[in-house]
Amino acid sequence: MKDIDFMARAIELAKKGQLKAQPNPMVGCVIVKNKKIVGEGWHQEYGKDHAEINAIKNCKKRFGLEKALKIIAGSDFYVNLEPCSIEKNTPPCSNALIEHKIKKLFCGTLDPNPKINGRGVKLLKKAGIETKVGLLSKECKQLNKIFFTNQKKSRPYIILKSAQSIDGKIALKNGDSSWISNPESRKDSHYIRSQVKGILVGRETAEKDNPSLTVRLTKKELGIGKNQIFDQPTKIVLGNFKKSKKNNKLFANNAKIIIGSRLSAKKSENLEYIEYKGKNFLGKFLEDLLARDISSILVEGGQKTLNTFITNNLFDELVIYTAPIFLGDASIETLSLKAPKSIKQSTRLNKVKIERFKDDLKTTYYNANI
Amino acid sequence: MKDIDFMARAIELAKKGQLKAQPNPMVGCVIVKNKKIVGEGWHQEYGKDHAEINAIKNCKKRFGLEKALKIIAGSDFYVNLEPCSIEKNTPPCSNALIEHKIKKLFCGTLDPNPKINGRGVKLLKKAGIETKVGLLSKECKQLNKIFFTNQKKSRPYIILKSAQSIDGKIALKNGDSSWISNPESRKDSHYIRSQVKGILVGRETAEKDNPSLTVRLTKKELGIGKNQIFDQPTKIVLGNFKKSKKNNKLFANNAKIIIGSRLSAKKSENLEYIEYKGKNFLGKFLEDLLARDISSILVEGGQKTLNTFITNNLFDELVIYTAPIFLGDASIETLSLKAPKSIKQSTRLNKVKIERFKDDLKTTYYNANI
Repeated sequence: MKDIDFMARAIELAKKGQLKAQPNPMVGCVIVKNKKIVGEGWHQEYGKDHAEINAIKNCKKRFGLEKALKIIAGSDFYVNLEPCSIEKNTPPCSNALIEHKIKKLFCGTLDPNPKINGRGVKLLKKAGIETKVGLLSKECKQLNKIFFTNQKKSRPYIILKSAQSIDGKIALKNGDSSWISNPESRKDSHYIRSQVKGILVGRETAEKDNPSLTVRLTKKELGIGKNQIFDQPTKIVLGNFKKSKKNNKLFANNAKIIIGSRLSAKKSENLEYIEYKGKNFLGKFLEDLLARDISSILVEGGQKTLNTFITNNLFDELVIYTAPIFLGDASIETLSLKAPKSIKQSTRLNKVKIERFKDDLKTTYYNANI
Repeated sequence: MKDIDFMARAIELAKKGQLKAQPNPMVGCVIVKNKKIVGEGWHQEYGKDHAEINAIKNCKKRFGLEKALKIIAGSDFYVNLEPCSIEKNTPPCSNALIEHKIKKLFCGTLDPNPKINGRGVKLLKKAGIETKVGLLSKECKQLNKIFFTNQKKSRPYIILKSAQSIDGKIALKNGDSSWISNPESRKDSHYIRSQVKGILVGRETAEKDNPSLTVRLTKKELGIGKNQIFDQPTKIVLGNFKKSKKNNKLFANNAKIIIGSRLSAKKSENLEYIEYKGKNFLGKFLEDLLARDISSILVEGGQKTLNTFITNNLFDELVIYTAPIFLGDASIETLSLKAPKSIKQSTRLNKVKIERFKDDLKTTYYNANI
């Protein structure tokens, strides 16, 4: 096995923390001595041991404490993210590596958290440990795209979503949109919902469409055990939302809703209003959502809300399901943006993923890289 | 080998006639005796021998005339299309099969040509030859989708094509559309052009955009020999087109143009006007194009022209290239159709093919089956 194979294994281990590590990043660690893996670990749950510590524990379990200490001394560590240099819920990992007298650290990327960024590596270098940063860096960043976006852009990772006809319409003029996309597409969109911490809609959609904004998948479909609890994403409304009988589905099961608006409506139970002065509060609202540990959101429309996010370049992915129907000129368009001055001056999104669900097409456009 | 394997081979042979058989269908024939192939042939060129005759000739070449006659007597014929029962450029194939005393005919589908449809099979039955119709019928129809459409709908096979932005726009308000799609997509669209007999645009597009409407691919890209001549598709304009210096590219290399319109403009060289009374002449115009051996057309816009074809349900494929850019609200929409009364009542196209060219997406929607 080569260096990149060990790092690929670290990434593989990291992914096991996908459901529980948030808002922490996913991290995996592989300890190698004489080209053989002698310990493996990953960050399993927010607030619990980091990957490096778990890998050391794993080595000790494999070989016994005394032998393990000898093995770890002079070994190489492969970690997808820079070891932390600060104490938060657990002691800093850099210290543990120094104490265990490791020989070399390979890490995929530096920690984008400005409080760490490079400090962990610096500490190790000072202690005479070799360091190599950048192994499979693209893959390591991709793995923690949510965490990198949170740290670098001080906002949640943002996915915009829409279901439209061939001619780019999301509903008839009378608001009818049931259903444009097929059951398979709609199930897929529930999988997207299950992977974010919050689902956001605009005030009009929340008031008129009476959406539930819940993940409606079985535990089996979610890949979790019968006794595990799935935390529904937080419901979020952009704009001065008013609770009424017409939008009662939002409040089913005592769900709480965060509302970001200029003026707050009458306070009521289960509604957290965040009030802003001035019109352009979206950036601040997103910061405030991140401060509430909402590290990723899915924006489900309507048209005005999607426009606002795109116009302000506040999105990381744009997901469009296209169904093989025509909805005509009088229907409501998916987007209504400003035209560029020329086609050359229009922004080209730099990456596209294409999937299909029967005769529906799913296109995921990725915005600028992290 | 099983029956379907022999039929699959007949289809494979038929495809060799793709470039030269039109407006005839592609036909392949396999002669089988004692489960072994003893002769193969295909319809190589319009006006020349049909597949059955070529397969018989091939058998005679393999075994010598005398032995071949003995082999063919009592043999099974596999043909993707019903043998013809009428004499056009060549004697009817049914007669040849009877004369050669074959035992059984397997054919993929009946000939959709109303003058033949079932008559070829009937002749053989009368002569005591077993017949089985319907082997790989779907594949056989698909192979000759152009021919089937021509025969059943009395019009060319129609492909609509457009290149658009994510938000469904084909040009800026000032007409700028260079270039929405990337070079790879544009090359692919030249491949589509190379496979049709005519390229149609609306009057406005022809007058304002000054298009060439030619296939710009090398002979190597077209898969033809250095000494072979590639016949450019016929240029067609829908509406009362006026020749001017602004649209001179259409006339390069002395190209001829067919124009279908209510009133014809001043006659001029290289323009064939077909005049119609009344507004709704598109159906009749398409019939007239087929009568001129234009068995397939590519419709390249603009918006009004695409609308007309879709509104009248006069299309077999809708090809949309989507580039990862936004062109905004003020730009020109790809389509502008009438809205259905409800989403349930909207027509769903029943088959979609998805391809990609770098970050451009190509979606091909197939309309009702033949």
